[in-house]
Amino acid sequence: MNKIFEKVNAAIIVIGDEILSGRTQDINVSFLSKWLNDLGVKVTEVRIIEDKEEAIVSCINELKFFFKYVFTTGGIGPTHDDITSKSVAKTFGLKYDFHKEAYNILEKYYKPGEFNEGRKKMAKIPEGATLIYNPSSGAPGFIVENVFCLPGVPSILKSMVGGLKNKIIGGKKILSKTISVQTVESDIAQSLEDVQNQFKNLQIGSYPFFRFGKIGVSIVVRSTEKKDIDECCKKIISFINKKNIQIIER
Amino acid sequence: MNKIFEKVNAAIIVIGDEILSGRTQDINVSFLSKWLNDLGVKVTEVRIIEDKEEAIVSCINELKFFFKYVFTTGGIGPTHDDITSKSVAKTFGLKYDFHKEAYNILEKYYKPGEFNEGRKKMAKIPEGATLIYNPSSGAPGFIVENVFCLPGVPSILKSMVGGLKNKIIGGKKILSKTISVQTVESDIAQSLEDVQNQFKNLQIGSYPFFRFGKIGVSIVVRSTEKKDIDECCKKIISFINKKNIQIIER
Repeated sequence: MNKIFEKVNAAIIVIGDEILSGRTQDINVSFLSKWLNDLGVKVTEVRIIEDKEEAIVSCINELKFFFKYVFTTGGIGPTHDDITSKSVAKTFGLKYDFHKEAYNILEKYYKPGEFNEGRKKMAKIPEGATLIYNPSSGAPGFIVENVFCLPGVPSILKSMVGGLKNKIIGGKKILSKTISVQTVESDIAQSLEDVQNQFKNLQIGSYPFFRFGKIGVSIVVRSTEKKDIDECCKKIISFINKKNIQIIER
Repeated sequence: MNKIFEKVNAAIIVIGDEILSGRTQDINVSFLSKWLNDLGVKVTEVRIIEDKEEAIVSCINELKFFFKYVFTTGGIGPTHDDITSKSVAKTFGLKYDFHKEAYNILEKYYKPGEFNEGRKKMAKIPEGATLIYNPSSGAPGFIVENVFCLPGVPSILKSMVGGLKNKIIGGKKILSKTISVQTVESDIAQSLEDVQNQFKNLQIGSYPFFRFGKIGVSIVVRSTEKKDIDECCKKIISFINKKNIQIIER
């Protein structure tokens, strides 16, 4: 595997019983992964955990040590099951109380008289945290050291990451090229392995699919170097042609 | 939180760079979670990890100790990036070689002359593993101790779990009831918390949604006891009515 991939890594922690129960389908992981990849950051681990303080604290404690960036999604809303802010404060030994800037933002955001207890809870953020502004619904996320806390609602999360670009220093962007062919994996497994062995600084993935009643395989070549990807794809296409396998897409 | 929930727990390990990169949207987690819940098993942690032996070995090693059941998805196909079987063998210190029963199944499954090297790789399974039969595409999954290894392709995975029912001994099934209301979370946060405090052996989740241009909140009450759920829902509906909030669905 390409050691360049390892340089800037990130982990995502999805906090939410609703994802674990299968009630809600997470879609934040794929969005964040692609967005981070564009910044040259590779997500190499994701954890989905319960809305429980001990689970959140121990998970963040572990991952903040191993990853350059840790993102959490979920649990920063106004209800009793939103315990991410409190848990992050505990993880870092910080005071969990009204954050002046967050309080001011929310106070302005709501009409007079509508800044109620539930909403005030969203101004409780670990002391000294840097805010992540929320252009869709007021309540900010926050950053403590290398831990970035975002909401769980996908549309709100998406609207908030724009302001983070200058806070993330990535490495080279990971590029990829996909070749889809009409075959089964086992008919190309050996040849693919042979090609992989010739290119140690890129990664070849093989993913079977069933589409419009046809079976096929998508071969995905990933590297930070376009030249290597092109050269590798040439070798793949060469053996594909020799085997008389139809190329669906490249 | 309900301690009954803890009795029979499970973790899911999703093995696959394609999920981490955001290229493929995982849908196995929500399927397995719901299916396990019907058997009285609660998924309380999910990890998505890379196609790397050290990542797989250390993850299984940790989770098999803490969870009654561990499920892995992905990485049991014929290509070079399918390394789950080998990694599980390493985790348990078992020989990784042709598994006689798996070999026989695959040999019969393919036409004479079509049982090639790639396909033979799928018969390499940790020594002594119990097979999980695959009615859609031949290649079996397997069980070692409390670790159940399934494929990543959702349709194949779904077709294989039917045979597992008698291998999983669950607890009480977790029941749930959803009340969807037309409001924002912050307007019901305090009342919800008050109700939650009256029912220690059930769990109330609150999930905002945007549907057909309307905003609302789904309140989900979970417990193993129907009686408790009904009583709790009555209290929720009572405060919802008092607040003149419209109930969309219950």
